[in-house]
Amino acid sequence: MRALDPLRIEPSRIVALGGGHGLAASLLALRHLTPDLTAVVTVADDGGSSGRLRHEMGILPPGDLRMALAALCDDTPQGRAWHDLLQHRFATDGPLDGHALGNLMLAGAWAERGDVVEGLTRLALLMGVRGRVLPMAEEPLVIEADVHREGYPDRVVRGQSRVAVTTGRVAQVRLLPEEPRMCGATLEAIRAADWVVLGPGSWYTSVLPHLQVAPLREAIHTASHLALTLNLQQQEGETDGFTAADHVRVLAEVDPDLRPDVVLADPAWVDDVSDLEDVTRSLGARLLLRQVRADDGTARHDPLRLAAAYRDAFTATWGDVTDR
Amino acid sequence: MRALDPLRIEPSRIVALGGGHGLAASLLALRHLTPDLTAVVTVADDGGSSGRLRHEMGILPPGDLRMALAALCDDTPQGRAWHDLLQHRFATDGPLDGHALGNLMLAGAWAERGDVVEGLTRLALLMGVRGRVLPMAEEPLVIEADVHREGYPDRVVRGQSRVAVTTGRVAQVRLLPEEPRMCGATLEAIRAADWVVLGPGSWYTSVLPHLQVAPLREAIHTASHLALTLNLQQQEGETDGFTAADHVRVLAEVDPDLRPDVVLADPAWVDDVSDLEDVTRSLGARLLLRQVRADDGTARHDPLRLAAAYRDAFTATWGDVTDR
Repeated sequence: MRALDPLRIEPSRIVALGGGHGLAASLLALRHLTPDLTAVVTVADDGGSSGRLRHEMGILPPGDLRMALAALCDDTPQGRAWHDLLQHRFATDGPLDGHALGNLMLAGAWAERGDVVEGLTRLALLMGVRGRVLPMAEEPLVIEADVHREGYPDRVVRGQSRVAVTTGRVAQVRLLPEEPRMCGATLEAIRAADWVVLGPGSWYTSVLPHLQVAPLREAIHTASHLALTLNLQQQEGETDGFTAADHVRVLAEVDPDLRPDVVLADPAWVDDVSDLEDVTRSLGARLLLRQVRADDGTARHDPLRLAAAYRDAFTATWGDVTDR
Repeated sequence: MRALDPLRIEPSRIVALGGGHGLAASLLALRHLTPDLTAVVTVADDGGSSGRLRHEMGILPPGDLRMALAALCDDTPQGRAWHDLLQHRFATDGPLDGHALGNLMLAGAWAERGDVVEGLTRLALLMGVRGRVLPMAEEPLVIEADVHREGYPDRVVRGQSRVAVTTGRVAQVRLLPEEPRMCGATLEAIRAADWVVLGPGSWYTSVLPHLQVAPLREAIHTASHLALTLNLQQQEGETDGFTAADHVRVLAEVDPDLRPDVVLADPAWVDDVSDLEDVTRSLGARLLLRQVRADDGTARHDPLRLAAAYRDAFTATWGDVTDR
């Protein structure tokens, strides 16, 4: 298959792993590069609308899956309308307050189809979503963290919503159950990928979990190529005081066999390039520094800049020097 | 335009008025006859999921509108999937219990579009619904009934959900507000209709309300032709002890200018044909007796039998005798 768009890259089976806004940013970029895009989404959220639905219905927390679906809605008037409906959040004085409509649609689709992947696939098809959205596991996960805080005894913080805003430094994170029921379609998609992209996102609660489950980790090792995409700033609670290099180290500690091909970072946030370069090289990867931050003053990725950076990451001739 | 399907009739702008299961039955039949089908739906429900959403969000009760959308879903795998999602009802131990997903989707679409008709039209378009669904008014209505019960003092029952199950005989029904904010698209559709179909349905709470609002009543008078479709049995509470002829009389009392072209009834439920014939003739209409009941033991209309009956109603040469 030849791509019509010169921006398109080949081969082009791309799987993006993450959760929340970080994964959505990756998807908004990657959809410019390939029509064969799969999102693999963390299912450990326990706060807000997702947390309430998870507990009321015993389902996967739908929020991050919904955001991935929304990021892959077709770029047409119909697709944009579905995007807006999926993302619509009720604001009432009653029990529906704060629920995202797309979360309720996922809950309904799961109940109708009796199967997580079936429900997701059917809903995506009905709304003309481009690409696939799959959960990292078939059952809801719980994140548990050991947290250090100067002058206080260490403590265990349980639940993604609490870990994400904890005051103190996250020392270690566990997923419960340790061996969750896996999703066959997810493992197959990762194994068959030409490129797997991990990050950006909440490092401990949306990125790291993908490396904490053995079958998922092994599937990532099997994929042809792996890119790590770093965040654009530290995240309060989760990664206070972390350098860019620390982010990579956290992953490598959990998965000593992690062998990315490329680590992508925005130079504006990398204070110590040589440190990041060292850790990157120690994993056998190349460091790609690209301006991918948006100009709106937020710490968000600009979809087209990130798309261009991914294109570079996926197509460059591999040297062992930093590409700035 | 020539219809491809010999079953199709011309001219063919058909508007069906009602609410709930009765209107859905009419729509399931009429969709066999025309691609230009509009449902005009009562907005007085205050029970169940609709009642809760109406009170929590200050919106039109969505339930009857949802049922009409579901009845007009395309007859394709995608259309049937949307039908099932619209009609999916959550069963939980929490606050979402009993909500229909389609009700929540309508609530979301209205909030997104900021307009009732816009929201309905957009959602229908996105789901590939065949035909239009419009509300009878742009604001929620309250039904209030005077109820007689042997041996008890007369009392006022307020709210569609209570009127529909009241013990006693409904003597008079009022709509509040008396002059609700009307929907321009609804009035236009009725005025432009080749045929308006009123009933079947809960007689006092889904059928009669369309004749209780002056602009709607006048639009119905303006339409080319009007068919009244009677129910298949008495409805506990609402029409205990009513004969088929009584049903027609109730409408004629509220709207003395009502001039239907045809009254359609199932002969199995008409005990006194000559009484029904008399009241029908007194309105200048023809009585059409057709077996339209389903064979499943319920008092439901069979869509294809009803379609055939409507075809007869719309195309027969008009005599003044009963057509049995």
